[in-house]
Amino acid sequence: MISHTEYLTITTPERYEIRDITDEVERVRRTAKLNEGFVLVSTMHITSSIFVNDHEAGLWDDIMAWLEKLAPAGKDYRHHLTGEDNADAHLKRMLLGHQVLVPVTNGSLDLGTWERVHYGEFDGRRPKRVLLKAFGLPS
Amino acid sequence: MISHTEYLTITTPERYEIRDITDEVERVRRTAKLNEGFVLVSTMHITSSIFVNDHEAGLWDDIMAWLEKLAPAGKDYRHHLTGEDNADAHLKRMLLGHQVLVPVTNGSLDLGTWERVHYGEFDGRRPKRVLLKAFGLPS
Amino acid sequence: MISHTEYLTITTPERYEIRDITDEVERVRRTAKLNEGFVLVSTMHITSSIFVNDHEAGLWDDIMAWLEKLAPAGKDYRHHLTGEDNADAHLKRMLLGHQVLVPVTNGSLDLGTWERVHYGEFDGRRPKRVLLKAFGLPS
Repeated sequence: MISHTEYLTITTPERYEIRDITDEVERVRRTAKLNEGFVLVSTMHITSSIFVNDHEAGLWDDIMAWLEKLAPAGKDYRHHLTGEDNADAHLKRMLLGHQVLVPVTNGSLDLGTWERVHYGEFDGRRPKRVLLKAFGLPS
Repeated sequence: MISHTEYLTITTPERYEIRDITDEVERVRRTAKLNEGFVLVSTMHITSSIFVNDHEAGLWDDIMAWLEKLAPAGKDYRHHLTGEDNADAHLKRMLLGHQVLVPVTNGSLDLGTWERVHYGEFDGRRPKRVLLKAFGLPS
Repeated sequence: MISHTEYLTITTPERYEIRDITDEVERVRRTAKLNEGFVLVSTMHITSSIFVNDHEAGLWDDIMAWLEKLAPAGKDYRHHLTGEDNADAHLKRMLLGHQVLVPVTNGSLDLGTWERVHYGEFDGRRPKRVLLKAFGLPS
Protein backbone atom coordinates (compact mmCIF):
# COMPACT_ATOMS: atom_id res chain seq x y z
CA MET A 1 0.00 0.00 0.00
CA ILE A 2 1.35 3.40 -1.02
CA SER A 3 0.53 6.79 0.45
CA HIS A 4 2.93 9.38 -0.92
CA THR A 5 2.39 13.13 -0.51
CA GLU A 6 4.06 16.07 -2.24
CA TYR A 7 3.41 19.79 -2.19
CA LEU A 8 3.71 21.89 -5.32
CA THR A 9 4.28 25.63 -4.92
CA ILE A 10 2.87 27.89 -7.63
CA THR A 11 3.46 31.64 -7.87
CA THR A 12 1.66 33.18 -10.82
CA PRO A 13 2.83 36.52 -12.21
CA GLU A 14 -0.81 37.50 -12.82
CA ARG A 15 -3.60 37.79 -10.28
CA TYR A 16 -5.84 35.59 -12.48
CA GLU A 17 -4.28 32.68 -14.32
CA ILE A 18 -4.90 29.12 -15.50
CA ARG A 19 -2.09 26.58 -15.68
CA ASP A 20 -1.94 22.94 -16.83
CA ILE A 21 -0.36 20.83 -14.05
CA THR A 22 -1.02 17.34 -15.47
CA ASP A 23 2.71 16.66 -15.91
CA GLU A 24 3.24 17.30 -12.19
CA VAL A 25 0.52 14.79 -11.35
CA GLU A 26 2.20 12.16 -13.54
CA ARG A 27 5.59 13.00 -11.98
CA VAL A 28 4.20 12.35 -8.48
CA ARG A 29 2.55 9.10 -9.62
CA ARG A 30 5.90 7.93 -11.04
CA THR A 31 7.88 8.95 -7.96
CA ALA A 32 5.38 7.06 -5.78
CA LYS A 33 5.56 4.02 -8.13
CA LEU A 34 1.78 3.95 -7.99
CA ASN A 35 0.22 1.33 -10.26
CA GLU A 36 -3.46 1.22 -9.18
CA GLY A 37 -5.43 3.80 -7.26
CA PHE A 38 -5.49 7.56 -7.63
CA VAL A 39 -3.70 10.85 -7.10
CA LEU A 40 -5.64 13.42 -5.10
CA VAL A 41 -4.83 16.93 -6.33
CA SER A 42 -6.13 19.58 -3.94
CA THR A 43 -5.31 23.26 -3.64
CA MET A 44 -4.49 24.28 -0.05
CA HIS A 45 -5.73 27.84 -0.61
CA ILE A 46 -9.30 29.05 -0.66
CA THR A 47 -8.84 31.46 -3.56
CA SER A 48 -7.73 28.95 -6.20
CA SER A 49 -9.10 25.89 -7.98
CA ILE A 50 -8.14 22.49 -9.31
CA PHE A 51 -10.27 21.36 -12.23
CA VAL A 52 -10.23 19.13 -15.30
CA ASN A 53 -10.89 20.62 -18.70
CA ASP A 54 -9.38 21.13 -22.14
CA HIS A 55 -5.85 22.53 -22.59
CA GLU A 56 -6.91 25.26 -25.02
CA ALA A 57 -5.99 28.91 -24.56
CA GLY A 58 -9.23 30.25 -26.07
CA LEU A 59 -11.27 28.16 -23.67
CA TRP A 60 -9.15 29.36 -20.75
CA ASP A 61 -10.04 32.94 -21.72
CA ASP A 62 -13.71 31.95 -21.96
CA ILE A 63 -13.56 30.38 -18.50
CA MET A 64 -12.01 33.50 -16.93
CA ALA A 65 -14.53 35.84 -18.62
CA TRP A 66 -17.38 33.58 -17.54
CA LEU A 67 -16.21 33.41 -13.93
CA GLU A 68 -15.96 37.19 -13.86
CA LYS A 69 -19.55 37.42 -15.08
CA LEU A 70 -20.92 34.98 -12.50
CA ALA A 71 -18.72 36.06 -9.58
CA PRO A 72 -17.46 39.56 -10.34
CA ALA A 73 -14.63 41.36 -8.57
CA GLY A 74 -15.94 44.42 -6.75
CA LYS A 75 -16.31 46.24 -3.50
CA ASP A 76 -19.75 45.14 -2.34
CA TYR A 77 -18.77 42.09 -0.34
CA ARG A 78 -19.05 41.78 3.43
CA HIS A 79 -15.84 39.75 3.42
CA HIS A 80 -14.06 42.99 2.53
CA LEU A 81 -14.96 44.48 5.91
CA THR A 82 -12.09 42.30 7.21
CA GLY A 83 -9.66 44.28 5.05
CA GLU A 84 -9.55 41.67 2.28
CA ASP A 85 -10.33 42.51 -1.36
CA ASN A 86 -10.60 39.00 -2.80
CA ALA A 87 -14.16 37.83 -2.12
CA ASP A 88 -14.62 37.20 -5.83
CA ALA A 89 -11.73 34.71 -5.70
CA HIS A 90 -13.46 32.77 -2.90
CA LEU A 91 -16.58 32.49 -5.06
CA LYS A 92 -14.85 31.81 -8.38
CA ARG A 93 -12.92 28.95 -6.85
CA MET A 94 -16.15 27.26 -5.82
CA LEU A 95 -17.54 27.30 -9.35
CA LEU A 96 -14.60 25.23 -10.63
CA GLY A 97 -13.99 23.20 -7.46
CA HIS A 98 -10.88 22.84 -5.35
CA GLN A 99 -9.81 19.23 -5.83
CA VAL A 100 -9.71 16.40 -8.32
CA LEU A 101 -9.15 12.68 -7.95
CA VAL A 102 -7.05 11.43 -10.87
CA PRO A 103 -7.56 7.68 -11.36
CA VAL A 104 -4.47 5.54 -11.95
CA THR A 105 -4.82 2.24 -13.83
CA ASN A 106 -1.99 -0.08 -14.86
CA GLY A 107 0.65 2.48 -14.00
CA SER A 108 -0.84 5.40 -15.97
CA LEU A 109 -3.08 8.37 -15.25
CA ASP A 110 -6.42 7.08 -16.53
CA LEU A 111 -7.63 10.26 -18.26
CA GLY A 112 -9.69 10.73 -21.40
CA THR A 113 -8.04 12.06 -24.55
CA TRP A 114 -8.69 15.71 -23.78
CA GLU A 115 -8.76 15.63 -19.99
CA ARG A 116 -6.04 17.76 -18.43
CA VAL A 117 -5.67 18.80 -14.79
CA HIS A 118 -5.56 22.57 -14.30
CA TYR A 119 -4.72 25.00 -11.53
CA GLY A 120 -6.92 28.09 -11.54
CA GLU A 121 -5.54 31.11 -9.69
CA PHE A 122 -7.81 34.01 -8.73
CA ASP A 123 -5.61 35.83 -6.23
CA GLY A 124 -2.06 35.22 -7.36
CA ARG A 125 1.31 36.96 -7.32
CA ARG A 126 2.28 35.07 -4.15
CA PRO A 127 3.25 31.46 -3.41
CA LYS A 128 0.35 29.02 -3.22
CA ARG A 129 0.54 25.33 -2.37
CA VAL A 130 -1.11 22.35 -4.02
CA LEU A 131 -1.22 18.96 -2.28
CA LEU A 132 -0.69 15.83 -4.40
CA LYS A 133 -1.30 12.52 -2.65
CA ALA A 134 -0.71 9.26 -4.50
CA PHE A 135 -2.70 6.48 -2.84
CA GLY A 136 -3.10 2.84 -3.78
CA LEU A 137 -1.12 -0.21 -4.89
CA PRO A 138 2.47 -0.41 -6.15
CA SER A 139 3.42 -2.21 -9.34
CA MET B 1 -7.27 -4.89 -1.47
CA ILE B 2 -9.46 -4.39 -4.54
CA SER B 3 -8.91 -2.01 -7.44
CA HIS B 4 -11.32 -2.83 -10.23
CA THR B 5 -11.93 -0.53 -13.21
CA GLU B 6 -14.69 -0.54 -15.82
CA TYR B 7 -15.62 1.84 -18.61
CA LEU B 8 -19.21 2.63 -19.43
CA THR B 9 -19.99 3.96 -22.91
CA ILE B 10 -22.97 6.30 -23.23
CA THR B 11 -24.37 7.62 -26.51
CA THR B 12 -27.31 9.94 -25.96
CA PRO B 13 -29.78 10.56 -28.81
CA GLU B 14 -30.03 14.21 -27.72
CA ARG B 15 -27.26 16.80 -27.51
CA TYR B 16 -28.35 17.66 -23.95
CA GLU B 17 -29.51 14.89 -21.67
CA ILE B 18 -29.50 13.68 -18.06
CA ARG B 19 -29.38 9.99 -17.22
CA ASP B 20 -29.45 8.08 -13.91
CA ILE B 21 -26.49 5.65 -13.81
CA THR B 22 -26.74 4.52 -10.17
CA ASP B 23 -27.55 0.93 -11.19
CA GLU B 24 -24.30 0.79 -13.19
CA VAL B 25 -22.36 1.94 -10.14
CA GLU B 26 -23.94 -0.82 -8.04
CA ARG B 27 -23.25 -3.37 -10.80
CA VAL B 28 -19.53 -2.45 -10.77
CA ARG B 29 -19.42 -2.63 -6.95
CA ARG B 30 -20.97 -6.11 -7.06
CA THR B 31 -18.68 -7.35 -9.84
CA ALA B 32 -15.67 -6.10 -7.85
CA LYS B 33 -17.04 -7.75 -4.65
CA LEU B 34 -16.28 -4.47 -2.89
CA ASN B 35 -17.42 -4.42 0.73
CA GLU B 36 -15.78 -1.27 2.17
CA GLY B 37 -14.37 1.73 0.32
CA PHE B 38 -15.80 3.62 -2.63
CA VAL B 39 -16.52 3.67 -6.33
CA LEU B 40 -15.05 6.61 -8.22
CA VAL B 41 -17.35 7.64 -11.07
CA SER B 42 -15.64 10.06 -13.44
CA THR B 43 -16.54 11.16 -16.94
CA MET B 44 -13.58 10.94 -19.34
CA HIS B 45 -14.94 13.76 -21.52
CA ILE B 46 -14.75 17.48 -20.85
CA THR B 47 -18.26 18.25 -22.10
CA SER B 48 -20.22 16.07 -19.69
CA SER B 49 -20.79 15.76 -15.93
CA ILE B 50 -21.23 13.26 -13.15
CA PHE B 51 -23.31 14.55 -10.27
CA VAL B 52 -25.59 13.43 -7.45
CA ASN B 53 -29.12 14.73 -7.23
CA ASP B 54 -32.75 13.68 -7.21
CA HIS B 55 -34.15 11.29 -9.86
CA GLU B 56 -37.06 13.56 -10.83
CA ALA B 57 -37.83 14.54 -14.41
CA GLY B 58 -39.10 18.02 -13.53
CA LEU B 59 -35.89 18.76 -11.64
CA TRP B 60 -33.83 17.50 -14.58
CA ASP B 61 -35.63 20.03 -16.79
CA ASP B 62 -34.98 22.74 -14.20
CA ILE B 63 -31.28 21.84 -14.12
CA MET B 64 -30.93 22.02 -17.91
CA ALA B 65 -32.79 25.36 -18.12
CA TRP B 66 -30.67 26.74 -15.28
CA LEU B 67 -27.40 25.63 -16.88
CA GLU B 68 -28.45 27.27 -20.13
CA LYS B 69 -29.10 30.53 -18.26
CA LEU B 70 -25.74 30.51 -16.46
CA ALA B 71 -23.65 29.11 -19.33
CA PRO B 72 -25.57 29.74 -22.55
CA ALA B 73 -24.87 28.15 -25.92
CA GLY B 74 -23.82 30.80 -28.42
CA LYS B 75 -21.21 32.02 -30.82
CA ASP B 76 -19.25 34.47 -28.70
CA TYR B 77 -16.65 32.13 -27.29
CA ARG B 78 -12.95 32.21 -28.15
CA HIS B 79 -12.93 28.41 -27.98
CA HIS B 80 -14.97 28.46 -31.18
CA LEU B 81 -12.03 29.96 -33.09
CA THR B 82 -10.66 26.40 -33.06
CA GLY B 83 -13.66 25.26 -35.10
CA GLU B 84 -15.56 23.87 -32.09
CA ASP B 85 -19.10 24.97 -31.22
CA ASN B 86 -19.41 23.48 -27.74
CA ALA B 87 -17.86 26.02 -25.36
CA ASP B 88 -21.11 26.12 -23.39
CA ALA B 89 -20.74 22.37 -22.73
CA HIS B 90 -17.26 22.92 -21.25
CA LEU B 91 -18.72 25.51 -18.87
CA LYS B 92 -21.95 23.66 -18.02
CA ARG B 93 -19.98 20.57 -17.07
CA MET B 94 -18.00 22.56 -14.52
CA LEU B 95 -21.13 23.80 -12.74
CA LEU B 96 -22.21 20.22 -11.98
CA GLY B 97 -18.74 18.69 -11.63
CA HIS B 98 -17.15 15.80 -13.48
CA GLN B 99 -16.74 13.11 -10.84
CA VAL B 100 -18.30 11.63 -7.73
CA LEU B 101 -16.98 9.32 -5.04
CA VAL B 102 -19.71 6.89 -4.02
CA PRO B 103 -19.02 5.49 -0.54
CA VAL B 104 -19.45 1.75 -0.02
CA THR B 105 -20.24 0.44 3.48
CA ASN B 106 -21.01 -3.18 4.43
CA GLY B 107 -21.36 -4.21 0.80
CA SER B 108 -23.80 -1.48 -0.26
CA LEU B 109 -23.61 1.92 -1.90
CA ASP B 110 -23.90 4.21 1.11
CA LEU B 111 -26.26 6.81 -0.36
CA GLY B 112 -29.03 8.84 1.24
CA THR B 113 -32.66 8.05 0.40
CA TRP B 114 -32.86 10.43 -2.55
CA GLU B 115 -29.25 10.44 -3.70
CA ARG B 116 -28.83 9.10 -7.23
CA VAL B 117 -25.75 9.29 -9.44
CA HIS B 118 -26.38 11.04 -12.75
CA TYR B 119 -24.60 11.49 -16.05
CA GLY B 120 -25.13 14.94 -17.58
CA GLU B 121 -24.49 15.20 -21.31
CA PHE B 122 -24.04 18.61 -22.97
CA ASP B 123 -22.56 17.57 -26.32
CA GLY B 124 -24.02 14.17 -27.06
CA ARG B 125 -25.02 12.09 -30.07
CA ARG B 126 -21.65 10.32 -30.01
CA PRO B 127 -20.07 7.70 -27.73
CA LYS B 128 -18.72 9.04 -24.43
CA ARG B 129 -16.89 7.07 -21.78
CA VAL B 130 -17.32 7.06 -18.01
CA LEU B 131 -14.70 5.48 -15.74
CA LEU B 132 -15.89 3.49 -12.72
CA LYS B 133 -13.20 2.40 -10.29
CA ALA B 134 -14.10 0.28 -7.27
CA PHE B 135 -11.43 0.64 -4.61
CA GLY B 136 -11.19 -0.79 -1.11
CA LEU B 137 -11.69 -4.00 0.85
CA PRO B 138 -13.41 -7.24 -0.22
CA SER B 139 -16.06 -8.95 1.85
CA MET C 1 -6.13 -0.92 6.43
CA ILE C 2 -8.83 1.22 8.04
CA SER C 3 -12.33 1.90 6.78
CA HIS C 4 -14.34 3.61 9.49
CA THR C 5 -17.71 5.27 8.85
CA GLU C 6 -19.74 7.65 10.99
CA TYR C 7 -22.90 9.64 10.37
CA LEU C 8 -23.33 13.14 11.67
CA THR C 9 -26.86 14.50 12.09
CA ILE C 10 -27.35 18.24 11.64
CA THR C 11 -30.61 20.11 12.27
CA THR C 12 -30.27 23.80 11.53
CA PRO C 13 -32.74 26.24 13.12
CA GLU C 14 -32.72 28.27 9.88
CA ARG C 15 -33.71 27.13 6.40
CA TYR C 16 -30.40 28.50 5.01
CA GLU C 17 -27.26 28.16 7.08
CA ILE C 18 -23.52 27.55 6.88
CA ARG C 19 -21.69 25.64 9.59
CA ASP C 20 -18.01 24.76 10.11
CA ILE C 21 -17.70 20.99 10.70
CA THR C 22 -13.90 20.63 10.55
CA ASP C 23 -13.70 19.59 14.21
CA GLU C 24 -16.07 16.69 13.49
CA VAL C 25 -13.82 15.55 10.63
CA GLU C 26 -10.80 15.56 12.95
CA ARG C 27 -12.79 13.73 15.63
CA VAL C 28 -13.63 10.94 13.16
CA ARG C 29 -10.01 10.74 11.99
CA ARG C 30 -8.86 10.40 15.60
CA THR C 31 -11.50 7.79 16.48
CA ALA C 32 -10.45 5.78 13.41
CA LYS C 33 -6.75 6.17 14.34
CA LEU C 34 -6.14 7.11 10.72
CA ASN C 35 -2.56 8.13 10.00
CA GLU C 36 -2.37 8.24 6.18
CA GLY C 37 -5.19 8.50 3.67
CA PHE C 38 -8.29 10.67 3.74
CA VAL C 39 -11.66 11.33 5.26
CA LEU C 40 -14.52 11.49 2.77
CA VAL C 41 -17.14 14.01 3.93
CA SER C 42 -20.36 13.70 1.93
CA THR C 43 -23.83 15.02 2.60
CA MET C 44 -26.52 12.34 2.19
CA HIS C 45 -29.16 14.90 1.22
CA ILE C 46 -29.63 16.55 -2.15
CA THR C 47 -30.45 19.98 -0.76
CA SER C 48 -27.23 20.62 1.15
CA SER C 49 -23.51 20.97 0.43
CA ILE C 50 -20.10 20.12 1.78
CA PHE C 51 -17.40 22.58 0.74
CA VAL C 52 -14.05 24.00 1.78
CA ASN C 53 -13.65 27.72 2.29
CA ASP C 54 -12.74 30.37 4.85
CA HIS C 55 -14.34 30.43 8.32
CA GLU C 56 -15.42 34.07 8.10
CA ALA C 57 -18.97 35.20 8.82
CA GLY C 58 -18.91 38.03 6.27
CA LEU C 59 -17.87 35.61 3.54
CA TRP C 60 -20.62 33.19 4.59
CA ASP C 61 -23.14 36.00 4.07
CA ASP C 62 -21.57 36.76 0.68
CA ILE C 63 -21.84 33.09 -0.31
CA MET C 64 -25.52 32.89 0.64
CA ALA C 65 -26.38 36.15 -1.18
CA TRP C 66 -24.44 34.98 -4.24
CA LEU C 67 -26.16 31.57 -4.32
CA GLU C 68 -29.54 33.31 -4.10
CA LYS C 69 -28.57 35.46 -7.10
CA LEU C 70 -27.42 32.52 -9.24
CA ALA C 71 -30.07 30.03 -8.13
CA PRO C 72 -32.98 32.02 -6.69
CA ALA C 73 -35.82 30.62 -4.61
CA GLY C 74 -39.12 31.01 -6.42
CA LYS C 75 -42.14 29.34 -7.85
CA ASP C 76 -41.17 28.82 -11.47
CA TYR C 77 -39.59 25.40 -11.21
CA ARG C 78 -41.03 22.24 -12.71
CA HIS C 79 -39.79 20.34 -9.66
CA HIS C 80 -42.50 22.14 -7.70
CA LEU C 81 -45.20 20.34 -9.67
CA THR C 82 -44.37 17.39 -7.37
CA GLY C 83 -45.50 19.45 -4.36
CA GLU C 84 -41.94 20.40 -3.35
CA ASP C 85 -40.86 24.03 -2.89
CA ASN C 86 -37.09 23.58 -2.68
CA ALA C 87 -35.81 23.45 -6.28
CA ASP C 88 -33.46 26.34 -5.48
CA ALA C 89 -31.82 24.17 -2.80
CA HIS C 90 -31.15 21.41 -5.35
CA LEU C 91 -29.40 23.96 -7.58
CA LYS C 92 -27.55 25.86 -4.86
CA ARG C 93 -26.07 22.64 -3.53
CA MET C 94 -24.56 21.88 -6.93
CA LEU C 95 -22.72 25.20 -7.08
CA LEU C 96 -20.82 24.39 -3.89
CA GLY C 97 -20.62 20.62 -4.35
CA HIS C 98 -21.80 17.81 -2.10
CA GLN C 99 -18.59 16.14 -0.94
CA VAL C 100 -14.99 16.77 -0.03
CA LEU C 101 -11.99 14.48 0.39
CA VAL C 102 -9.90 15.68 3.33
CA PRO C 103 -6.33 14.39 3.01
CA VAL C 104 -4.69 12.94 6.12
CA THR C 105 -0.89 12.96 6.41
CA ASN C 106 1.15 11.84 9.42
CA GLY C 107 -1.89 11.66 11.63
CA SER C 108 -3.28 15.14 10.87
CA LEU C 109 -5.85 16.64 8.52
CA ASP C 110 -3.60 18.02 5.78
CA LEU C 111 -5.36 21.35 5.21
CA GLY C 112 -3.98 24.75 4.29
CA THR C 113 -3.96 27.53 6.89
CA TRP C 114 -7.39 28.87 6.01
CA GLU C 115 -9.05 25.73 4.71
CA ARG C 116 -12.07 24.70 6.77
CA VAL C 117 -14.73 22.11 5.93
CA HIS C 118 -18.25 23.53 5.87
CA TYR C 119 -21.78 22.20 5.76
CA GLY C 120 -24.13 24.36 3.68
CA GLU C 121 -27.83 23.92 4.39
CA PHE C 122 -30.45 25.21 1.92
CA ASP C 123 -33.57 23.40 3.19
CA GLY C 124 -33.06 23.01 6.90
CA ARG C 125 -35.14 22.88 10.07
CA ARG C 126 -35.12 19.08 9.94
CA PRO C 127 -32.47 16.40 10.63
CA LYS C 128 -29.96 15.89 7.81
CA ARG C 129 -27.17 13.31 7.72
CA VAL C 130 -23.54 13.69 6.69
CA LEU C 131 -21.37 10.63 6.01
CA LEU C 132 -17.75 10.69 7.22
CA LYS C 133 -15.59 7.80 6.06
CA ALA C 134 -11.99 7.56 7.24
CA PHE C 135 -10.01 5.40 4.82
CA GLY C 136 -6.32 4.48 4.75
CA LEU C 137 -3.49 3.34 6.96
CA PRO C 138 -3.31 3.27 10.78
CA SER C 139 -0.43 4.72 12.76
